Amino acid sequence: MDTRNTLANIRIVMIQTSHPGNIGSAARAMKVMGLSHLTLVKPKSFPDEQANAMSSHADDILQNAKVVQTLQEAIADCHLVIGSSARFERNLNWDVLDSRECGAKTAKQCQSGKVALLFGRESSGLNNEELSLCHHLVHIPTNPKYSSLNVASAVQILAYECRLATSDLSINKNSEDVADIEKPVSASEMEGYFAHLEEVMQKVDFLDPENPGYLMPRLRRLYSRTGILESELKLLRGFLSAIQKKL
Amino acid sequence: MDTRNTLANIRIVMIQTSHPGNIGSAARAMKVMGLSHLTLVKPKSFPDEQANAMSSHADDILQNAKVVQTLQEAIADCHLVIGSSARFERNLNWDVLDSRECGAKTAKQCQSGKVALLFGRESSGLNNEELSLCHHLVHIPTNPKYSSLNVASAVQILAYECRLATSDLSINKNSEDVADIEKPVSASEMEGYFAHLEEVMQKVDFLDPENPGYLMPRLRRLYSRTGILESELKLLRGFLSAIQKKL
Repeated sequence: MDTRNTLANIRIVMIQTSHPGNIGSAARAMKVMGLSHLTLVKPKSFPDEQANAMSSHADDILQNAKVVQTLQEAIADCHLVIGSSARFERNLNWDVLDSRECGAKTAKQCQSGKVALLFGRESSGLNNEELSLCHHLVHIPTNPKYSSLNVASAVQILAYECRLATSDLSINKNSEDVADIEKPVSASEMEGYFAHLEEVMQKVDFLDPENPGYLMPRLRRLYSRTGILESELKLLRGFLSAIQKKL
Repeated sequence: MDTRNTLANIRIVMIQTSHPGNIGSAARAMKVMGLSHLTLVKPKSFPDEQANAMSSHADDILQNAKVVQTLQEAIADCHLVIGSSARFERNLNWDVLDSRECGAKTAKQCQSGKVALLFGRESSGLNNEELSLCHHLVHIPTNPKYSSLNVASAVQILAYECRLATSDLSINKNSEDVADIEKPVSASEMEGYFAHLEEVMQKVDFLDPENPGYLMPRLRRLYSRTGILESELKLLRGFLSAIQKKL
């Protein structure tokens, strides 16, 4: 396994970043750890002089950064999506990784598919809709009395953990092992499943579109944290189709 | 052991920092990880507006920062002195720790005495005389082709490693915290679900009891590895019941 290639499968996604300086600092933080792919969802100002100034010599990362309008676009081809969160989302039964576990999981997954690490707005982080697109959350342990971690610093710490975990793995590498690991499906395939599930749940009057409550978000959580495999998704969708046919 | 007290034994020492913004960012990076003692050796400009601006709400750390003229003064009462270095000082037979080892060593030492972590000039790091005052060097693993780690980011990573290593040592799992996390359901509850699922799958002709193949074993794997929660199982079973009712 080649550390460079696996790190190239990691995408940093910054959502509605307000301060362009933070984008520049994040680019530098990425490059210093060997990461290269940055996607910006609706940045307030980009390209921007301040981003360039803060990037030091990581301007190639800024030049190659993709700017998109929705998070869905940013993660469509990703097989693992991890959202960084300053809060513990206990009540929604999130599978919250700590930063070290996030590095290990990312390092493993990025051997065979793309991984997105999401960073929300400076002021308010990720919103509920964005959270619902994540397979896991990651929480960086901080001082409970002052948890104001700068967004570029959060990128720095997670990129660092990814680098360390990737080089840990490459020590006892066996590239043949990797080939026969079945991949979890991509985010867009999961979206297809959720849409199908929602349709059938409405059909059997289990989901009331007028009053949906937390049903879908809770089921999204459940299926997302599992890392559904290609062959499993076929079974799940096959079952839904069989129900539809019978009705 | 009290994490706060041990972290209070760690002193960040920044030597001849040129950009006051880096001092402010370092203060924020420290506070977010629970560190509080900052000593500045001959800073170019301090106090400084830019340092305040970058510190976010970590201004207490700046207000309490000590300014001294020599490194000797800064570390006089310290029992362990670790200098951060971008280079591997191999030829000098340095005992170079990586950042994780630095966290572990610091966490151990700061239970009983003061530890100084030294950060050199932005341009040129620590000079030979300063290196000679260190017990160890620490190297943060970086991209060999671009190792330009910002000094405040270096403070961030080492402070983070110290926090993690300190809390590893203190194993301060609060049992009350654990109590309100919802538990995965028991094996027998899962069996109830699988029986229900099998029944409905037969009803919609998705599962042929004469020729079941690997359908159930595969779905068992999927749901078992997830760790289904009490409240989630209710949803899954509710969906199955809704399908049965509709048929």
